Amino acid sequence: MSEAAAPRRARGGGGAARRAARSAISFDTARFIERNIPNLDILTAEAIEIIETNAETVLEEIGVAFVENPVALARWRDAGADVRGERVHIPRGLARKLCETAPARFTQIARNRDRDVEIGGNSLVLAPVYGPPFVRDQAGGRRYATMADFETFVKLGYMSKWLHHSGGTVCEPTDVPVNKRHFDMLYAHMTLSDKPFMGSVTEPSRAADSVAMAKILFGDDVVDQNCVMTSLININSPLTFDGVMMGALEEYAAAGQAAIVSPFIVGGAMAPVSVAGTLTQVLAEVMAGVAYSQLIRPGAPVIFGAFVTSIDMNSGAPTFGTPEAAQITYGAGQLARRLNLPFRSGGSFTGSKLPDAQAAYETANSLNAALLSGVNFMLHACGWLEGGLVASPEKFVMDADQLGVLHKLAQGIAIDENAQAMDALREVGPGGHFLGCAHTQANYSDAFWRTGLLDYKPFETWAEEGARSTQELAAVKVDKMLADYQAPPLDPAINEALQAFMTERKAAMPDAFI
Amino acid sequence: MSEAAAPRRARGGGGAARRAARSAISFDTARFIERNIPNLDILTAEAIEIIETNAETVLEEIGVAFVENPVALARWRDAGADVRGERVHIPRGLARKLCETAPARFTQIARNRDRDVEIGGNSLVLAPVYGPPFVRDQAGGRRYATMADFETFVKLGYMSKWLHHSGGTVCEPTDVPVNKRHFDMLYAHMTLSDKPFMGSVTEPSRAADSVAMAKILFGDDVVDQNCVMTSLININSPLTFDGVMMGALEEYAAAGQAAIVSPFIVGGAMAPVSVAGTLTQVLAEVMAGVAYSQLIRPGAPVIFGAFVTSIDMNSGAPTFGTPEAAQITYGAGQLARRLNLPFRSGGSFTGSKLPDAQAAYETANSLNAALLSGVNFMLHACGWLEGGLVASPEKFVMDADQLGVLHKLAQGIAIDENAQAMDALREVGPGGHFLGCAHTQANYSDAFWRTGLLDYKPFETWAEEGARSTQELAAVKVDKMLADYQAPPLDPAINEALQAFMTERKAAMPDAFI
Repeated sequence: MSEAAAPRRARGGGGAARRAARSAISFDTARFIERNIPNLDILTAEAIEIIETNAETVLEEIGVAFVENPVALARWRDAGADVRGERVHIPRGLARKLCETAPARFTQIARNRDRDVEIGGNSLVLAPVYGPPFVRDQAGGRRYATMADFETFVKLGYMSKWLHHSGGTVCEPTDVPVNKRHFDMLYAHMTLSDKPFMGSVTEPSRAADSVAMAKILFGDDVVDQNCVMTSLININSPLTFDGVMMGALEEYAAAGQAAIVSPFIVGGAMAPVSVAGTLTQVLAEVMAGVAYSQLIRPGAPVIFGAFVTSIDMNSGAPTFGTPEAAQITYGAGQLARRLNLPFRSGGSFTGSKLPDAQAAYETANSLNAALLSGVNFMLHACGWLEGGLVASPEKFVMDADQLGVLHKLAQGIAIDENAQAMDALREVGPGGHFLGCAHTQANYSDAFWRTGLLDYKPFETWAEEGARSTQELAAVKVDKMLADYQAPPLDPAINEALQAFMTERKAAMPDAFI
Repeated sequence: MSEAAAPRRARGGGGAARRAARSAISFDTARFIERNIPNLDILTAEAIEIIETNAETVLEEIGVAFVENPVALARWRDAGADVRGERVHIPRGLARKLCETAPARFTQIARNRDRDVEIGGNSLVLAPVYGPPFVRDQAGGRRYATMADFETFVKLGYMSKWLHHSGGTVCEPTDVPVNKRHFDMLYAHMTLSDKPFMGSVTEPSRAADSVAMAKILFGDDVVDQNCVMTSLININSPLTFDGVMMGALEEYAAAGQAAIVSPFIVGGAMAPVSVAGTLTQVLAEVMAGVAYSQLIRPGAPVIFGAFVTSIDMNSGAPTFGTPEAAQITYGAGQLARRLNLPFRSGGSFTGSKLPDAQAAYETANSLNAALLSGVNFMLHACGWLEGGLVASPEKFVMDADQLGVLHKLAQGIAIDENAQAMDALREVGPGGHFLGCAHTQANYSDAFWRTGLLDYKPFETWAEEGARSTQELAAVKVDKMLADYQAPPLDPAINEALQAFMTERKAAMPDAFI
């Protein structure tokens, strides 16, 4: 039994927090997925060996660049790498060896301990869209995202049953100065939700601020002894680790907080056009980044990330939900498991401008491949549009409903006596009907996954109700969720301390908008 | 090398047909899929053993009903079954034993022999929607289907690159008398397309008419010695084989033509609510049906069919693209392979009334599960709406585009030297760009699957062009395809003979509309 299912334990919040918890409005959140089905391994043993050998060649012969980061170069030199200028040539086997101290599975705790998640092994943790500067909704169309939109997405995530994690930059609040928005974003996750969340990575100082705010929320000891944040550390593919991202990684690793070390690749542009070539580069990049995290603090929790998609060779646009993206996801999952590292990939990816059929085909292709490739942490699991430029509340709840499909599929097929249903087959017999039989009556309430959104009504009823599309039904659901939303309780003393910290820090810096 | 790739061979059509073939407008059709990736086996060996044992118990103890079919009962009695009234109790092991004479893989030939398909083993043959009485298109809304609609779908199927098969009742032409429409439907498949097709099953006499028309098209010898038609023989689940469907099966099996023996199950209504119970029933039903086909003619080609979905316990409506449907598809694939039979399942299933996001999520879930469960023949691969009540031209081309994703995914990951792309990685190095490198230039044209429909344009371009949804883009594509359509050439003598046969047969029967 994991910690997530264990009784709620005492922590820093004190008596007020416990009293608040007792009076909470509780929204049902599913436990993170633990797969009871196999992964689809599409790389042969021979292919894995070739890719792993080639990745070592890349690290040794071509090397990786750690730019504007002399301390990192010194660390690599001390570890045995051949450093020439900013280029780090990593001797064959060294990166893989350094990766060995990273944990295969770790727990990220939430302020509501029932919502702790475990990342690694057979788990799958689902987190929402990350990063879009624009928002599109049915009522307002497409526009720059604001802090109000950010809060909307945090609330929707809090109320989404199949979402285990509140995520990070659910959209870019462009109405807040760029050097101050991390405070508001973290504060929203900490106060509007009680699910686990992510820290800021846009400057090392903002990562430090994130750790400081987490210490106010959880208490110093809890943060020192637990993972309370994940962070998205993108590699500047090909083979480049920039100083800002590595600075954030250094902060988080030193604090024992988790980092997703993730190549960001549009295949054909930032990696070779071939799947095997891209996997080679992904593996080399992740091994170098994870190894570096372990040079900072052996045992720091890290995740093997792979954000990889293909390119439309006509327009140069990135494309999503494609077969090549699925192949890379399957392959990267195998490579991550060979390293004994948790694996991050997949998401509600689409290039579509609207939450229409294109969006849903591409998203469903991505979600299915992510489940079956053994993803442990799925960022962007709901809410993406337009290649990640846009977050959409309607798409958010549409995708979040589909995440329920993954939960049920991952359970596998029960084969106990009740599931065998021989009594039902005997009772009904040829030509009969199962709806009324005892087995159906005993099992109907949880036999099948139930949508909270899709329309199964007869044509006539559906037509009378306005012949609504999925997007229109989703818009109604968004409004209902926001109307029903109630913030999870939080110790007022913690809330005040968070606000005081933010006020003081913000006052110490001028506004910056670029 | 399979027959499909072999040179075009001489056949019944004679010189006129060969001359016509030389002047044909050729539309590109992909070869049927041969998987180079593993199947996802989610049933454990223990679960398989339990389900197989239970299925034998169902056949022996509960038995199956062969109704209004005394000849079938006599055949079963002769084969060693315990027949009581119309109930056939099949001794443990007998049905599986009888299934052994059915081929594991067979070729269905097309009048354009380049379009022959192989069904079984690692193949996947894609055929369009089957059976809807209604049509919905963007211009005309929802209405009863007509023969003109039927011809539209046959033309779209002929011109769809990723569709290998012309299918059967692509919609019900309700403006043609019910006892005569099979002639017009077959004539449309035979003349408007040159892909393989399906025969009529609604009366044994119509199956006989189908065989007679095939003999005119292919020549008597070709039909006697080859499979030239598949047919969809639904089992009246639970456990009932009605006289009409079995009469059609008898015609086809006797003629050496293929039958898909297929339970038609809405789980919770026609089968137990549990996945394992449903799989038990599916296995028992298919074994009984396939065994019966082998009693008619040992070696007759048959396909293990599984049309199974779940039910919405609130409304009683069938539901599609659900996790339970996927689990049953995966499990049924394993059971079919244990019987060494080709497997039919999957399709563009959806309960949605519109070709919107719901339709696409549900369809993509179904298509992905079908590919990975080892389906060999996928009926309904494109064009479904509204639980199969409606066929949609827009949905047809939307789904048909997604079938290209399955083709590429099934190829697996190349690992030859070109695919490894080490030269590209060396050429580009850290911080570089792959678009201009030699490897990309040499490989870009077929590196990535390309959509023929979806929109990847920048937001501004897309907005200037009318901000069109997938459905709107599909409507444009449908019009373009129909405008470009040219019928494949056919020997005029054969065409006249087909028409003469139809005229004579139709004149011999009064119109019937029920």
